[in-house]
Amino acid sequence: MAMAIALSERGRGRTGGNPNVGCIIVKGGIIVGRGWTQPGGRPHAEAMALAQAGKAAKGADIYVTMEPCAHKSERGPTCADLVKDAAPARVIVATLDIDERTRRHGIDRLGDAGVSVSVGLLEQQAHRAMAGFFTRMEKGRPHVTLKLAMSLDGCIAMADGTSKWITGDRARAHAHLERARCDAILVGAGTVAADNPSLDVRLTGLEKRSPIPIVLGKAEIQDHWQEIAEPEAIAGLDNINWLLIEGGSATAASFLKANLVDRLLLYRAPILIGGGLQGIGDIGLGSLDAAHGQWTRLDRRDLGQDMLEIYERAA
Amino acid sequence: MAMAIALSERGRGRTGGNPNVGCIIVKGGIIVGRGWTQPGGRPHAEAMALAQAGKAAKGADIYVTMEPCAHKSERGPTCADLVKDAAPARVIVATLDIDERTRRHGIDRLGDAGVSVSVGLLEQQAHRAMAGFFTRMEKGRPHVTLKLAMSLDGCIAMADGTSKWITGDRARAHAHLERARCDAILVGAGTVAADNPSLDVRLTGLEKRSPIPIVLGKAEIQDHWQEIAEPEAIAGLDNINWLLIEGGSATAASFLKANLVDRLLLYRAPILIGGGLQGIGDIGLGSLDAAHGQWTRLDRRDLGQDMLEIYERAA
Repeated sequence: MAMAIALSERGRGRTGGNPNVGCIIVKGGIIVGRGWTQPGGRPHAEAMALAQAGKAAKGADIYVTMEPCAHKSERGPTCADLVKDAAPARVIVATLDIDERTRRHGIDRLGDAGVSVSVGLLEQQAHRAMAGFFTRMEKGRPHVTLKLAMSLDGCIAMADGTSKWITGDRARAHAHLERARCDAILVGAGTVAADNPSLDVRLTGLEKRSPIPIVLGKAEIQDHWQEIAEPEAIAGLDNINWLLIEGGSATAASFLKANLVDRLLLYRAPILIGGGLQGIGDIGLGSLDAAHGQWTRLDRRDLGQDMLEIYERAA
Repeated sequence: MAMAIALSERGRGRTGGNPNVGCIIVKGGIIVGRGWTQPGGRPHAEAMALAQAGKAAKGADIYVTMEPCAHKSERGPTCADLVKDAAPARVIVATLDIDERTRRHGIDRLGDAGVSVSVGLLEQQAHRAMAGFFTRMEKGRPHVTLKLAMSLDGCIAMADGTSKWITGDRARAHAHLERARCDAILVGAGTVAADNPSLDVRLTGLEKRSPIPIVLGKAEIQDHWQEIAEPEAIAGLDNINWLLIEGGSATAASFLKANLVDRLLLYRAPILIGGGLQGIGDIGLGSLDAAHGQWTRLDRRDLGQDMLEIYERAA
């Protein structure tokens, strides 16, 4: 299942309104099929893995990070039917779908056809890997990551705005990889005016995975940009599961204030700036007590001389 | 030698102008004597360890973090003589003394008496453990640690100055332990006016190890406080090897600007404050390039939910 979850990450940021599912088909200890939700959402992970496996899927074990879809679509047969017709021995599901049209119907259809089905293996990890979809279904908005690149003393730029560069090559490459894993990137109008950022993915081979640029507020933008007037308007962004916020401090603060940040991506360089610009403006914090217990660290790693910490909002 | 260095840490912050040396005497695989520089500087580590070992020191191996002293003092015989008279088989020294009155004389006196002497084992670690003494001898001022307790976004307080509490119990206890390892603590006049801090060690059993409080600038202070007018005046502090700076941001900036900070002690809590007070004011940084390459991380560890990072100035 861990492998299926890793595969699901390949689709992250490219599956439109669909969940980025991963699927592995195993027979006799050998992987006979691997699949992940393809760009735009089709084929689904199961369809791709089953196509690879062919007849080998019969009697096999299918690991899939989300319950196979059971609701009809113009875009092809349901995965529940595809899986059922392949006649596997077992289907191991990490998490149920949250879409009521499929929820439990997918596994029931398989169970009714005599396939052994289990649910819950690595559920939390799968949920996290597909958090964009779940957040959109549960909260009616994309999953939001706030990225900051800071000095040890928490500055994101010198007092005059200079921010090239705080972090080193490896941290910046990682930040571009995170861009490629998002459907859209948002910055504030002030950042557009000051930096005119391109917000594209500058990693060899991933140039085409550049997300949709979005500005919060009024700014002079190019045609392919989108514009929203307030943080809450992200609810109206179609087919965007994963949203990355890259600055500046007023924009970061407005999303935090609106309780619309799910994940923090903090890159920290071993430098002191002193009296520079802060990454986050006033978020209307009433007391220090209120600040505690909000964030849980998921990961911490070194990227060259810099450090990356990833936090998610505490449950 | 690692054990001798660990012992040397016991004296840290309490040996006045003397180095905090550690010493282990080993015979036949058994430790027969342990010593570390005692409060005020006497007895020296070697004298203490030799007193423990007694006749067992004859033919033993003596591990000592610094070359035994060879210059006469009114306070007793030199350690070089004491060691020589004990007739050990070998003396293993981590680092030479930097005091010209002893430098090389200590080991030469032992060598001349037929004792096998080696120098350099774990030298860097020993140097770091006695950095207060070395800094005072080399730079004519105490070794300076700057401590900051921050949020993830680099704030040391809310905008209204509230800073109780950013970090949790374990981080605060560790910070008090660090106080106990210093001869003196310095804060700015603004911090004194705002917080009237006691700067004592509030750890059971270590209350008597509270350092000398010092204020930078003019403030209403109690009798046992000292006062200095500018960062450079720390050169005039007598018998202080280890100095800890605890705030505020202008004080931190003034020491950094004067290039008088050797070590950073950064406690970071998993909270966001947003638009709070920064830990370090303007340090006159000319460019981001100039900020790089200045600090090397020595340690990183979790203290409860908080994280501690220790940096030292790059060589």
